[in-house]
Amino acid sequence: MSDATDAYDDLLDHVGRLTNVSKAREVLSWDQQVMMPEGGTPARSQQLSTLSAVHHDLLTDDELGRLLDDLSESSLEDDRAAVVREVRREQERAVCVPTDLVERISAASSEALTAWREAKSADDFETFAPHLEELVDLKRRYAEHVDPDRDPYEVLFEEYEPCLPLSHAEDVLTTLRDAVVPLVDDIRASDADLATDAFTAHGPFDTESQEALMRTALDRLGYPWERGRLDIAPHPFSTGTQFDARVTTRYDEADPIGALLSTVHEFGHATYTLGLPDDAYGTPLGEARDLSIHESQSRLWENHVGRSTAFWEGFLPAVVDAFPGVDDVSPREAYEAVNAVDPTNLIRVEADELTYHLHIVLRFEIERDLIRGDLDVSEVPAVWNDKMESYLGVRPETDAEGCLQDIHWSHGNFGYFPTYSLGSVVAAQLFDAAADDIKGLDDQIRAGEFDSLHEWLTENIHRHGKRYETNELVRRATGEGVSADAFVDYATAKYGDLYEL
Amino acid sequence: MSDATDAYDDLLDHVGRLTNVSKAREVLSWDQQVMMPEGGTPARSQQLSTLSAVHHDLLTDDELGRLLDDLSESSLEDDRAAVVREVRREQERAVCVPTDLVERISAASSEALTAWREAKSADDFETFAPHLEELVDLKRRYAEHVDPDRDPYEVLFEEYEPCLPLSHAEDVLTTLRDAVVPLVDDIRASDADLATDAFTAHGPFDTESQEALMRTALDRLGYPWERGRLDIAPHPFSTGTQFDARVTTRYDEADPIGALLSTVHEFGHATYTLGLPDDAYGTPLGEARDLSIHESQSRLWENHVGRSTAFWEGFLPAVVDAFPGVDDVSPREAYEAVNAVDPTNLIRVEADELTYHLHIVLRFEIERDLIRGDLDVSEVPAVWNDKMESYLGVRPETDAEGCLQDIHWSHGNFGYFPTYSLGSVVAAQLFDAAADDIKGLDDQIRAGEFDSLHEWLTENIHRHGKRYETNELVRRATGEGVSADAFVDYATAKYGDLYEL
Repeated sequence: MSDATDAYDDLLDHVGRLTNVSKAREVLSWDQQVMMPEGGTPARSQQLSTLSAVHHDLLTDDELGRLLDDLSESSLEDDRAAVVREVRREQERAVCVPTDLVERISAASSEALTAWREAKSADDFETFAPHLEELVDLKRRYAEHVDPDRDPYEVLFEEYEPCLPLSHAEDVLTTLRDAVVPLVDDIRASDADLATDAFTAHGPFDTESQEALMRTALDRLGYPWERGRLDIAPHPFSTGTQFDARVTTRYDEADPIGALLSTVHEFGHATYTLGLPDDAYGTPLGEARDLSIHESQSRLWENHVGRSTAFWEGFLPAVVDAFPGVDDVSPREAYEAVNAVDPTNLIRVEADELTYHLHIVLRFEIERDLIRGDLDVSEVPAVWNDKMESYLGVRPETDAEGCLQDIHWSHGNFGYFPTYSLGSVVAAQLFDAAADDIKGLDDQIRAGEFDSLHEWLTENIHRHGKRYETNELVRRATGEGVSADAFVDYATAKYGDLYEL
Repeated sequence: MSDATDAYDDLLDHVGRLTNVSKAREVLSWDQQVMMPEGGTPARSQQLSTLSAVHHDLLTDDELGRLLDDLSESSLEDDRAAVVREVRREQERAVCVPTDLVERISAASSEALTAWREAKSADDFETFAPHLEELVDLKRRYAEHVDPDRDPYEVLFEEYEPCLPLSHAEDVLTTLRDAVVPLVDDIRASDADLATDAFTAHGPFDTESQEALMRTALDRLGYPWERGRLDIAPHPFSTGTQFDARVTTRYDEADPIGALLSTVHEFGHATYTLGLPDDAYGTPLGEARDLSIHESQSRLWENHVGRSTAFWEGFLPAVVDAFPGVDDVSPREAYEAVNAVDPTNLIRVEADELTYHLHIVLRFEIERDLIRGDLDVSEVPAVWNDKMESYLGVRPETDAEGCLQDIHWSHGNFGYFPTYSLGSVVAAQLFDAAADDIKGLDDQIRAGEFDSLHEWLTENIHRHGKRYETNELVRRATGEGVSADAFVDYATAKYGDLYEL
């Protein structure tokens, strides 16, 4: 037992170092996106690359392998077993992929990124296609190194969602697709006339007042400024630790509500990070349970709080304070404006809460078939457009508005897209469970009282870190594993009301 | 030759990694001082500590030792020889000090820092004394590991100034002391009535206008914003790389000129960093030649530009634009205000350009004697006060205003103080040489044209990185090694004029 304790302490030292290098890298990345002058890129790229290499060296260090071997033979209590399980998962994956393949993928992504930017801007899929082919090929080889006997897409999906079985995720996405497609059909056929332009009709909205409004919103939601910041970034994100979790946003003078919902979304990510236990910093118990659960937190706050009737009944006066020109907007109109569905929209990042899932399912199906070898890169534009027509009833006229719109594949990120929708369905499950447990949650949201909701999320999700695997974590919080049912019920009721279906 | 080339390339890879870890650490430190919310400290301390440990591991890695051994036997061209010389110096020092001693010093400093803060606030040297004793002891042991046969203070001085012999530095400081003490005596006896309060009489000065004034000043001096930033920090500093060198400052509503000169000082540091060659980033040829030369750049811009008659003749209108209340201040009054000598001042960081050196010489003499074992910690307060009386004609009434005022010793930094004065004398040498080479430099300063001065400094100092050792670098730029003579001549003339001596 004493040897195991020593080995466990040594493991924690090693993992602490890994965490610190990884978190240091995040600080550099935040700085690059938020603060760094443009001239800084050459040195910053090298610094980020060195920290990645140092992290990889620490993760594949023989000493870590020996510690994990020692600990697998000893009987560990639950928390320690969870720590060892999580470190081993990451370590085993890292050691079985040759460094030169990792470097080739990194170099190919770098070239693909440049090619993608040009291809998108010129609406020329042909110039991007060879890069996409190369990345598909390299990532298939990557998957083969990890496990030659399994579906390569499954292996890649686990890069982002390591402990939710792909078959389970696939069921969820199929359920979602089969429920959302007819709902969007009904909405398209509806005569309901929503107050889509309730706010935007009163623009422009100056950036300074928008920023003040974001701070008011974050105050109301309970963001602890002594452990956070709000800054501007071209592509909003949240990053940090339980001691310092930062939010970024961007401003569009035509639309303050876009910035608001984006800020609330990133705030949701930050609350998860802040809710991780302080004393577990540097161990898997102090780290978030992967992308879907992270996204569930951002979507819960963005959609189930920030797009709710109760929130707008309470928060609208703050918007009027910031922009007196909108004083004739009613809470119902505000609610309609933030929830209007636009089936003609072609762009994922501009999609509403409902059609968003169809954008994701389409990408999931295409990337899965690419990686499995069931689809050729050359077929992607046509398949994309066919699926858009089949799921959303619209057909992109250009690839720039179609299969070239997202950056993910040029990074070699195959398996990432599903986590957005998975997060969204988990958000619906969690919100239902929270509403069952918290008496008068709706009234609290209206009154700007969020302590109970924060406590519920911390108690049921945040404080566990990576203690439980994904389905187990969700089951403990809601009574069932990851499922699309709660979202489908929620969306059916919500859009049924809005569109008089 | 091919083997040596391979080894040299491997060395550059290794040194590039070292540089990137070190520069990443600087970004984290900048963030901590400028951006980080206060709650972030626990995680940030761990991240900084891990990056230090990673750096130390890379520096003491056997592979680096082998590469350096291989390269010492091969004949290298000049630049490569300089790179190997600099890496070897740092590596040899690191490998001969046991890790546990480094860790003990780090832990002792951490405790000493807390004790020093309390002792200073309570004016109670006794509570700090045991911590100072421990640090003196640990640092002597540190020096003994590096070289048991040499003066331990010399060894510690080389931590900050590795290639300027201590005996040389000591001569410079003695010359300085022997010239400045009688000059300050004369000033104290002078009847001259300088316009000390020319600006401060018109306060307060709001922070927002002060910041705009700083940006105007940095624009005028030629700060390249695409490679820099200006922010606020409690203790102003500059940090970064040739691609991104940032400036910080702080504001006092009673005195905008303090912020201005501090900003110009940090700008001087930043210009050095920015002048290092881009293509040598990650090697010693792309790094600054230690602290004295760095300080020479900040002092040159602060004192020889920012405190000059010509600068104030040109820049005063910008101050009036920012603060119309000062429109009755003449350029001569402004010049007097920024150059007034106050021999009664007890605090180093508030000292004028002249008496500053006596504060340094005093610290240098005390820390040298402490480390050499010629002075007991218990004697420090009395010796400090005696020297203050002897050099400056004033005696502190408390240790808080005396030997407890500076943070350096509680960090275990013995040998650091001299670099401030050494930088200042090199600044005077460089400015003389630049004025000889640049026709009409004074007129250019008045007109706000700084291109020639930037070019001269880049050509003679910045672009060399660590190519030459300190005296050689200064000799190539000015015709002689580091010397106090130019400063003494400059100060004698300047203060002779100001104080009608």
